[in-house]
Amino acid sequence: MIGLGRMGANMTQRLLSGGHSVVVYDRDADAMASSAAAGAKAVVSVPDLVNRLAPPRAVWVMLPAGAVTDAVIGELASLLDLGDAVIDGGNANYKDTMRRGEMLAQAGIHLLDAGTSGGVWGLVEGYSLMVGGDAETFARLEPIFQTLAPGEDKGYSHVGPTGAGHFTKMVHNGVEYALMQAYAEGFELLQAKQADFDLDLTAIGRTWQHGSVVRSWLLDLAVLALEADPGLESLSAYVDDSGEGRWTVNESVELAVPTPTITAALYQRFRSRQDEPFGARLLAALRNQFGGHAVREAGPQ
Amino acid sequence: MIGLGRMGANMTQRLLSGGHSVVVYDRDADAMASSAAAGAKAVVSVPDLVNRLAPPRAVWVMLPAGAVTDAVIGELASLLDLGDAVIDGGNANYKDTMRRGEMLAQAGIHLLDAGTSGGVWGLVEGYSLMVGGDAETFARLEPIFQTLAPGEDKGYSHVGPTGAGHFTKMVHNGVEYALMQAYAEGFELLQAKQADFDLDLTAIGRTWQHGSVVRSWLLDLAVLALEADPGLESLSAYVDDSGEGRWTVNESVELAVPTPTITAALYQRFRSRQDEPFGARLLAALRNQFGGHAVREAGPQ
Repeated sequence: MIGLGRMGANMTQRLLSGGHSVVVYDRDADAMASSAAAGAKAVVSVPDLVNRLAPPRAVWVMLPAGAVTDAVIGELASLLDLGDAVIDGGNANYKDTMRRGEMLAQAGIHLLDAGTSGGVWGLVEGYSLMVGGDAETFARLEPIFQTLAPGEDKGYSHVGPTGAGHFTKMVHNGVEYALMQAYAEGFELLQAKQADFDLDLTAIGRTWQHGSVVRSWLLDLAVLALEADPGLESLSAYVDDSGEGRWTVNESVELAVPTPTITAALYQRFRSRQDEPFGARLLAALRNQFGGHAVREAGPQ
Repeated sequence: MIGLGRMGANMTQRLLSGGHSVVVYDRDADAMASSAAAGAKAVVSVPDLVNRLAPPRAVWVMLPAGAVTDAVIGELASLLDLGDAVIDGGNANYKDTMRRGEMLAQAGIHLLDAGTSGGVWGLVEGYSLMVGGDAETFARLEPIFQTLAPGEDKGYSHVGPTGAGHFTKMVHNGVEYALMQAYAEGFELLQAKQADFDLDLTAIGRTWQHGSVVRSWLLDLAVLALEADPGLESLSAYVDDSGEGRWTVNESVELAVPTPTITAALYQRFRSRQDEPFGARLLAALRNQFGGHAVREAGPQ
């Protein structure tokens, strides 16, 4: 396991609990010490990690998308042998994955892209794994997926060739954006009507959890958040994104498939980060220009 | 129970199984016979139904929103006595419900609005019930809700005064529209990429059911649909709506709360019913006008 962030560390722990032996590497010494304490073998470098594994090797890479993943997979390409396998469990763009797969294939190394969902809950509940790549390599490494998944016969599958796993995970995350936004809008409507109806949003969320059409794991999480802070007053209304929503919208454009809710959900996140967007200033200016409508002057900068 | 459609008949059956005695009325003789066979007492008219109940009565009305519900509740207003209660479990507009509640209150009759979710699965799994109205009346009739809900301590709650139940159910359905559209967009993207990756949408849906962030009851239903017909070729891409999505969007406008995904989901349903929308013809005309872009001529009408 290369990369012991929140995901990599938890997955290492789940693999160890499942009886696998795991060799770990991370640049962060504390993360390494923590996994070592849980029973993993910590090594000091990527070459050291490769040396500690017997061929055919399986190296799980759990790193941020982009340059870091590229660098480590590039390094592995020069260290691994014919028949070894790299598993990229991160949220890589599937086109990068296809490129890396071709690069590794030239050295006879397999790349499995294992789109991984489950977040911090995966350690206990198991991860949902969408795996792309060579079918034979997938079959050989299936015990790994069986341990990481919620059950040995569920929550993981071989979805297609290299790239298909990350493509499927990208779409999964796009869907996730829109599902989250759907609940966000619903609870905001309920909140806006509280003055008239004195609605208890937490109680309503709990009622929806049982028997309703909108019950889901995300709703369960919404209820947990509302229970902890019914008015969500401890949070700023600022929502980040980590790229997969953008890729999904880009892919919608490339495939000419309309995805209005996924796209709107992404744009609402962008909007959440704007204090005084230029577009809204322009709208105010135009209303003033053509109709003499009142505007609000900007406060001190 | 007045109204033995799909919902009313199943709810009657669940109440009977839970040990309640139920008097039923419906204009349809077959529906009445069917509920009578299940153990309900069938009567020939609304006055007859009222006579068969001992005060304080509870009359559950499960009818289509609008004129039918208005007529029956109007009839009940003249038949029921002080302290009796009407429970409207249908999908009424909450403003109609508030009006009806005031009308009934003048005769000392309580109106509980019990927004009911669960569809055809409710019979077995229990219904999610969002109940508005007088707290004391709610408490008196709680055994009914406990039987209809998935458990005697979950899946139902008193959310506020008369109208609050149907308001909450309206928002619930708005959220449902956007959740459904989110999955629709995701699976359409996967389907559009099938040529490259040979994706098995059913297998992907099953993988998402376990451990993933997007797991939900609607996803479970999507998997059932894909299992029965992987390409959904037996269905036309025509999607109806029954009003609650429209009301949610109207309410968003009234409260000035942006609901882009709920609104987009509703509009996608409208679009699904258009063969040759005038708007798209106008776009084609404009592209031709300013840029000489090719247009497709209309086929024979």
